[in-house]
Amino acid sequence: MPTYSAPLRDMRFVLKDVFKIDELWASLPGLEGAVDMETADAILEEAGKISAEVIAPLNREADEEGSHWHDGQVTAPAGFKQAYETFSEGGWVGLGGNPEFGGMGMPKTLVAQVDEMVQSASISFGLAPMLSAGACLSINVHGSNELKEAFLPNMYAGTWAGAMDLTEPHACTDLGIIRTKAEPLGDGSFAITGTKIFITWGEHDMAENIIHLVLAKLPDAPAGPKGISLFLVPKLAVNEDGSLGENNGVSCGSIEKKMGIKASATCVMNFDEARGWLVCAENQGLACMFTMMNYERLGVGVQGLGAAETSYQNARDYARERLQSRSANGAVAPDKAADPIIVHADVRRMLMTMRAYNEGGRAFSTYVASWLDITKFSTDRETIQKAEAMVALLTPIAKAFMSDKALEATVLGQQVFGGHGFVREWGQEQLVRDVRITQIYEGTNGIQAMDLMGRKVVQNKGAMVDVLVAEINDFIQANADSEGAQIYLKPLSAAIELLQETTQVVVSQAAEDADAVGAAAMDYLHLSGYVVYAYMWAKMALCSQGLMAEDEDFHGAKIGTAQFFFQRLLPQTEALAKNIASGSDATMALKAEQF
Amino acid sequence: MPTYSAPLRDMRFVLKDVFKIDELWASLPGLEGAVDMETADAILEEAGKISAEVIAPLNREADEEGSHWHDGQVTAPAGFKQAYETFSEGGWVGLGGNPEFGGMGMPKTLVAQVDEMVQSASISFGLAPMLSAGACLSINVHGSNELKEAFLPNMYAGTWAGAMDLTEPHACTDLGIIRTKAEPLGDGSFAITGTKIFITWGEHDMAENIIHLVLAKLPDAPAGPKGISLFLVPKLAVNEDGSLGENNGVSCGSIEKKMGIKASATCVMNFDEARGWLVCAENQGLACMFTMMNYERLGVGVQGLGAAETSYQNARDYARERLQSRSANGAVAPDKAADPIIVHADVRRMLMTMRAYNEGGRAFSTYVASWLDITKFSTDRETIQKAEAMVALLTPIAKAFMSDKALEATVLGQQVFGGHGFVREWGQEQLVRDVRITQIYEGTNGIQAMDLMGRKVVQNKGAMVDVLVAEINDFIQANADSEGAQIYLKPLSAAIELLQETTQVVVSQAAEDADAVGAAAMDYLHLSGYVVYAYMWAKMALCSQGLMAEDEDFHGAKIGTAQFFFQRLLPQTEALAKNIASGSDATMALKAEQF
Repeated sequence: MPTYSAPLRDMRFVLKDVFKIDELWASLPGLEGAVDMETADAILEEAGKISAEVIAPLNREADEEGSHWHDGQVTAPAGFKQAYETFSEGGWVGLGGNPEFGGMGMPKTLVAQVDEMVQSASISFGLAPMLSAGACLSINVHGSNELKEAFLPNMYAGTWAGAMDLTEPHACTDLGIIRTKAEPLGDGSFAITGTKIFITWGEHDMAENIIHLVLAKLPDAPAGPKGISLFLVPKLAVNEDGSLGENNGVSCGSIEKKMGIKASATCVMNFDEARGWLVCAENQGLACMFTMMNYERLGVGVQGLGAAETSYQNARDYARERLQSRSANGAVAPDKAADPIIVHADVRRMLMTMRAYNEGGRAFSTYVASWLDITKFSTDRETIQKAEAMVALLTPIAKAFMSDKALEATVLGQQVFGGHGFVREWGQEQLVRDVRITQIYEGTNGIQAMDLMGRKVVQNKGAMVDVLVAEINDFIQANADSEGAQIYLKPLSAAIELLQETTQVVVSQAAEDADAVGAAAMDYLHLSGYVVYAYMWAKMALCSQGLMAEDEDFHGAKIGTAQFFFQRLLPQTEALAKNIASGSDATMALKAEQF
Repeated sequence: MPTYSAPLRDMRFVLKDVFKIDELWASLPGLEGAVDMETADAILEEAGKISAEVIAPLNREADEEGSHWHDGQVTAPAGFKQAYETFSEGGWVGLGGNPEFGGMGMPKTLVAQVDEMVQSASISFGLAPMLSAGACLSINVHGSNELKEAFLPNMYAGTWAGAMDLTEPHACTDLGIIRTKAEPLGDGSFAITGTKIFITWGEHDMAENIIHLVLAKLPDAPAGPKGISLFLVPKLAVNEDGSLGENNGVSCGSIEKKMGIKASATCVMNFDEARGWLVCAENQGLACMFTMMNYERLGVGVQGLGAAETSYQNARDYARERLQSRSANGAVAPDKAADPIIVHADVRRMLMTMRAYNEGGRAFSTYVASWLDITKFSTDRETIQKAEAMVALLTPIAKAFMSDKALEATVLGQQVFGGHGFVREWGQEQLVRDVRITQIYEGTNGIQAMDLMGRKVVQNKGAMVDVLVAEINDFIQANADSEGAQIYLKPLSAAIELLQETTQVVVSQAAEDADAVGAAAMDYLHLSGYVVYAYMWAKMALCSQGLMAEDEDFHGAKIGTAQFFFQRLLPQTEALAKNIASGSDATMALKAEQF
């Protein structure tokens, strides 16, 4: 059975030592002293406990059991309902929520760590509070005061859950062609009719009510993406006094049989003249969704990281205990039939790769979260503008690079187990199956790459990239004279230059070739991912060099892992740049009939 | 539901056009005119039919149903028994078997194509005849005439199945520490006692008897790998007259719950004084196994290829039909709500990558098979020696590179389907789960890499690599003046040089650092994989250039895919070489306690 223990030491290192996050918190007017490092420590410790002790023990069996659909009702696997209640009672659903309506108002830099722990324990479970928090975010930013008062307190409390209803059978990536209709009822509310698919936890028995945010088209709405509106549609009607009424025409037609996240229900949702309310202005639905998407997409990257961390912990423990063959340097356990496999260089390669991606990912997600916190809590316009550019640029990287590397890491963590990694009992294969969805949902990684390459890079001719480059160059200059810094700063500089060159290559290609953006997109996203992880690893290594005396084992491991990243993973950037330079010709060489 | 149709056109291209395999067949004395291209065509066509029409339709449901264990008996999923009978009656199990005992005596170059089709249809099913054929191979090469006469005819006929019993709970990679015992019974037979795990199709109801090849230790055998012997142990005793007797002390304790290949039974096998016979000389068990292993390991690579081909076919069909968003070059289906997704460059990237790996893999597995055929059917000692070097060098690449690329390809094939790729009904996710085992069993890919880097490269200081390099350089020189050849030959030359340089780097590293081999192994295996695929793609592209007039669509697609391989995949070699050049320091930087 897999086990999990929260990496609190590493989280504190990232927050306090690497990012001096308490100083950022203290400097943001909107946070108004809501959190300091001591509070944060207490929150992290409690989150670690509930994740490791309440949620994680359910995950293996829940995968075997799955959610149950019966006659429109969905029952979550054994233990989920109770764990959800415990989780909700702890206030965890509303951790980042608006304090005016019962949220705890914590910054994303802290919430992201808690998210990681919950996702490490169980992605299937973690999806429920994640979607509730996402729905709350939309309602809080765009909804009327009446909507907020009526829904947010119960949602933050977890008494009511949230769900996001976007996809239709014929409309996934291309939401502009949805068919769900909203007819005005004349009293400010609308009758919503249509079918949505792939709705995570669209129906379940863990909360008293489920609040759906549904994309639909008003009569006479313009065609395409500009004619989509966002509606709040509760599963059970909410009476004037706040009590729950009848079913509101919302029903679950079936749930999917999936590869992974089997414990979570992925629902076909039918809306049959269900009463709903506009969350934001008519036909502004997609823009509304995007407010939330930066958070959700980072959250999906963090899901991958969470599962990859669990996979690492279990692979490390197994590698220490499993005896097989002798070390290349001579027996280290001569009294036993064989040495623990952690002595073998090829096993080290797998564990070190996992560390490099996981710890790099943890720093990177915290970094992205810090820009999100600045956009939300700063009052300085220029600072906010810069932060918005960084969030826009980094979000697709966080979603796609983190989830791609999470698949790689969980596959490695499974591989360390040999044949046992393929047996379900050991839990390593489930992490692979669960992580696989993070590359697909919330916009496939191909869509993330197109968003990055098209909207965030080519459209502004690399202006956003320049903001990132300036940021990293400031860091390089500030640390140029530190002892031993150049072994990180030199390859980081080279990687940054390569990113700049490649950016210009694609901008030029795109001016003459409509397919250039699409052909370059995925390689460019990965190139950017390696560059930002190199930045993170340089920051961490320099930080650990300074703190070595404090804890040699911890900081020495950090420096060793940084060196592994620079020597054995970062060279990938050169291949990616070369791929991109070749343009779209080969990619587009065949006619559709030739496939 | 996934569909499959055998890629006969491509197989014939590889066999006849690229490798002129009919000329090789005619030139091999041992094949004695047993097969020509016409016979081969007929065999391929029939194999395509039985794979697509009899086996493939069972695969999806069989994954859901799984094999059943009840009180020591294993029942295969619905339809498997009948399909296995049909398959056996067609003579397919004995396709490559010794004609003296009822086999069809076909060369591996042909058998490999049939294997691919069967594995495309269902890896779970395909494992049964694959293991039977492997067991037959061992018996045929090493067994006494009595054993051959008593067992091979029924095994080739499929009436009796074969299984390989190597692994024990504490001994997977490290077979030297097995505990299963063989006590001489004084009449030339032995009593075998012990427990084996991970025994594929170790028990089932598809055949009348199951012939186990079991690794065990004789009393007073030397410790370690040199004290292991190989025994033939039938599940049911075989009477003097060939009829079946009582159970021979062979029982299945349980079957594993796995990530994939769920339809196949992975058995815990208990041997309780089961009567068995030595297959080869005492304590020569491991050497015996290795005879078979070159075939089995190529077979595992071909399993990956088979599943990746099915994934490609389904992804291609889906990409042609699924409508979502518009082409970057303007609508191609303006009468519809959106364009088919095959117009998008990022979807092309996925399909082209799959093609490049699958078609490269098909050529490569045929190439390796041709060396196997030469070792088996040639009578010229020097030719055989060279062929043995090529087989030794290329087998770990075939097993590990093909299965690694198969995972990559099936993940891409799933990704093309978006959210539907995660839903089991569509079949794409099953291919990912099924392929995942090919990286693990028959020696994990890490073990393959160690075998390549250690035994096949460093131990002989690159002498085997030189044989391959000479082979490729001959090809480069022979084609240097062909029109348009340099766009393939130039990067191929560069890749070969990089391989040679890197080989010398590792040979030097290994002289001073015991961990150098392990730290370099996986990257070196991949580097070699890209180089041999580049060789295959150059061969195919030049061949297609010459045949263009014959079929412009087919050969044009081949050339386009070759260009994609050279421009967008081969640059990977540079990153791999750079990783390796950095040595083992970073990989081994941490103490075991620091993980």
